[in-house]
Order: sequence, then C-alpha cells, then structure tokens
Amino acid sequence: MLKLYHYHISANSRRVWITLLEKDIAFELVSLKLDGDQFQPEFLALNPFHQIPVLVDDGFSVVESLAILDYLEAKYPTPALLPTDAKAVATVRMVEMVTVNELLPAMEPLFFQMMDIAEQKPEKLEQAKQKSATVLTFFEHLLGDSPYFGGKHLTLAEVVAGTVVPWFPSLGMSLGNFPKLSAWSEHLMERASWQKTQPIPELMEAAATRMKAVIAQRQTH
Amino acid sequence: MLKLYHYHISANSRRVWITLLEKDIAFELVSLKLDGDQFQPEFLALNPFHQIPVLVDDGFSVVESLAILDYLEAKYPTPALLPTDAKAVATVRMVEMVTVNELLPAMEPLFFQMMDIAEQKPEKLEQAKQKSATVLTFFEHLLGDSPYFGGKHLTLAEVVAGTVVPWFPSLGMSLGNFPKLSAWSEHLMERASWQKTQPIPELMEAAATRMKAVIAQRQTH
Repeated sequence: MLKLYHYHISANSRRVWITLLEKDIAFELVSLKLDGDQFQPEFLALNPFHQIPVLVDDGFSVVESLAILDYLEAKYPTPALLPTDAKAVATVRMVEMVTVNELLPAMEPLFFQMMDIAEQKPEKLEQAKQKSATVLTFFEHLLGDSPYFGGKHLTLAEVVAGTVVPWFPSLGMSLGNFPKLSAWSEHLMERASWQKTQPIPELMEAAATRMKAVIAQRQTH
Repeated sequence: MLKLYHYHISANSRRVWITLLEKDIAFELVSLKLDGDQFQPEFLALNPFHQIPVLVDDGFSVVESLAILDYLEAKYPTPALLPTDAKAVATVRMVEMVTVNELLPAMEPLFFQMMDIAEQKPEKLEQAKQKSATVLTFFEHLLGDSPYFGGKHLTLAEVVAGTVVPWFPSLGMSLGNFPKLSAWSEHLMERASWQKTQPIPELMEAAATRMKAVIAQRQTH
C-alpha cells in the first residue's frame, strides 16, 4: 500500500493527502514529528533533503509535493486532475507555482502573527497583505467565470491553492475584494477531502509551540 | 509569434529558450536589462511578480518557467519532452523541482565566488559543495543507466537540470564522483540548443557587475 510521510499542519503534505482522497486511492498516513526524526537514517534514505511529504509506492520513493501530485495523476488518471487544453494546463501550472513561490512566502508574517509564533512589525504585516493581494488579484483574473481554474472540473490548481487561499479570513485579510475566489474557496471547503484534512486547533497549537522553540534556538546561534 | 521575455544569463529563462529550440518553435526573444525595466507598467501587466521569463502567445501571458515548459509541451507535443510511464514522470518532475528548490540555492555561494560578486567564507563554500553533492548523488542514482532521466529521450528534466549541472567544473567542483551524470552533462552540452543558449563571458561579466551593485545597495539600506 502507498505510504504518505507527512506532517499534520503542512500545506505541502495536505495537497498530497487531498489528492489521494479525491482519487480514492488506499494509503497509509505516517506522521513525522519534525523534532529531528526527519534526520534519522531511515527517513534520509527516503528523502536526502529531509523534508515532508514523501510518497513511497512499493519501494519507489517520490519527494517534492508537486512531483508527487504528477506521479499520482500519471498512475491513477481517474478522476483526472489535469486538463488537456494548453491554456488550461498553463493556468493550472501557474496557480501551482505562484502559490508555492509567491503566495506562501508572502503570507508567512500573517501566519506567524496569527499563531503567535513571533511578533511582527505593522509594516511587515502591511507588506505581507499587499504582496498577498497581488497574488489574489492575479488568481481572481485567472479564475474568471469558471468554477475551477482548469475549467469545469477540480484540478491540481484547486488542490494546491485551495489549501492556502481559504486561510486568509482567519489571517485578518478578508477575501471580499476577490468575490470569485471567495466563492471558489468556500465551495472547496465543503468537499469531504478538505474537511477531513483540515488541521485541528490542538495540532496547530502544538506546531506553533514547536516553531517558537526552533526560532528561539536560531536566535541564540 | 511567441515572445519570450528573458534575461541573458538566467537559468530560468534558458530552460524555456532551449525548449523552444528543441521543439523548433518560431519565437522572438525580448531581452530585459533587469535594471528596473521589470517594474515598468508594460512588464507588470505581463507578470505582476516582475520576474523573467514570461512567454506571451497571442496576448496570453504565461509566467513561471516550469509552467511555461508545460504550456509548450501541451501546445506543441512533438517532440515529446515528457514521458508517460508514471515512474518516469515522477523522476522527471523530481529532477525539475529538486533543481529549483535544492540545487540552485545550494550552489549560490559557488556562483558568487566564481563571478567575484561577493567574497564567500571557506566554510560557506564547503557547505555549498556538500549540499550540492547531496543533490548530485540523488541525481546520479535517479539517472541510473538511462541516457536521459525519463528513459531513452530528452525530457524537461534535462532542460531544467542540464542547464545547471554542467556549471560545476567551472565552479571548482568536479563531477568526477558522479560519472553517469558527468557523461550525461557532456552529452547535453554538445546539442545545438545548449550551445546556442550558452551565456557568453562578456554578458556574464556585465551581469556580475550589476549584481555587485545591487548587493552594495542592499548593504547600505
């Protein structure tokens, strides 16, 4: 059976978990604590870059969440989570890459503030909101009048951006200026796969405590 | 005609340029100076994240180099640069993502040293070599006895990693410990598309001068 090595509040592993559920694939969830267990030889043998998620399929180890999504799409093509039309492919891939390379880094100060991990200066929070708004504007335009980024069906764009965008209201940034994206986000949160993988508050608090300790340790080095 | 907005020494734009050549697609190259021209309204309308490369196809703008590669693959499927077998897909995607997320950041100090952009401490250079070696070991294993990462044919893995790995000997790190990867690298450098897109020394020096100025400016802020 497939094994997904994951961490309970990671957006990177949640996107793989949701894809497994949406494709109705049987799998075993292996939780890491990231307290140093990611540096153990058994885990380094699966991923020399000591990061989650890792998917192991009968001894074949796949690292990097976006690579894992494409592996699952190739091996379990039904239901399809990628369109075939070239413009729709470009849109889905742009949403995947921009979420990872622009949106997640932009919103980090907002997360740190919400989780009370580290005090953020007001200008840093304002900058985070502005950078996030640039991405959300871009997404609102790409989504247009389609229910999903790739057209009529759920795609990897939903799986990747749809586990990040719904956080904004809790981060103190309304999606009111992005009505299409807001409706898209609420619609996704109703899906069973989203609800099942939603991090529970107790786990988020435990993760925040761990991150505070990591940051404190960094500052003494 | 397709327009590729690029910067002459960027590995990110070179991978798109090579793909256009390998697929024999007609295109126009538009060079940015990155001296502030990336913040001009005309360019921000193409890419609100003010980065190259951008591909514009009849008014449709595609940002993020890996998304552009997938757009080209979907629109111009011949010759195919993606395999169809699930394990081969996973391998190609892992090489793409690990090059971008692990290898390029790891080797940055080696580049800065070679280009005389900023003095690097010996321990930082040593760490860069160690981290790079972890990636190269991973790639050597993934390549195995195949001529290309996806099997018998050139893939996007070659386009992405193959514009980065060949730099190592010039960066003071031999590929001698990675004989398969070394042969793969030399083989790629013989291709017309690699030779045509190889940054010429004059342009690299000009880029180094510009980066020195950017770093000096950052340090005074």
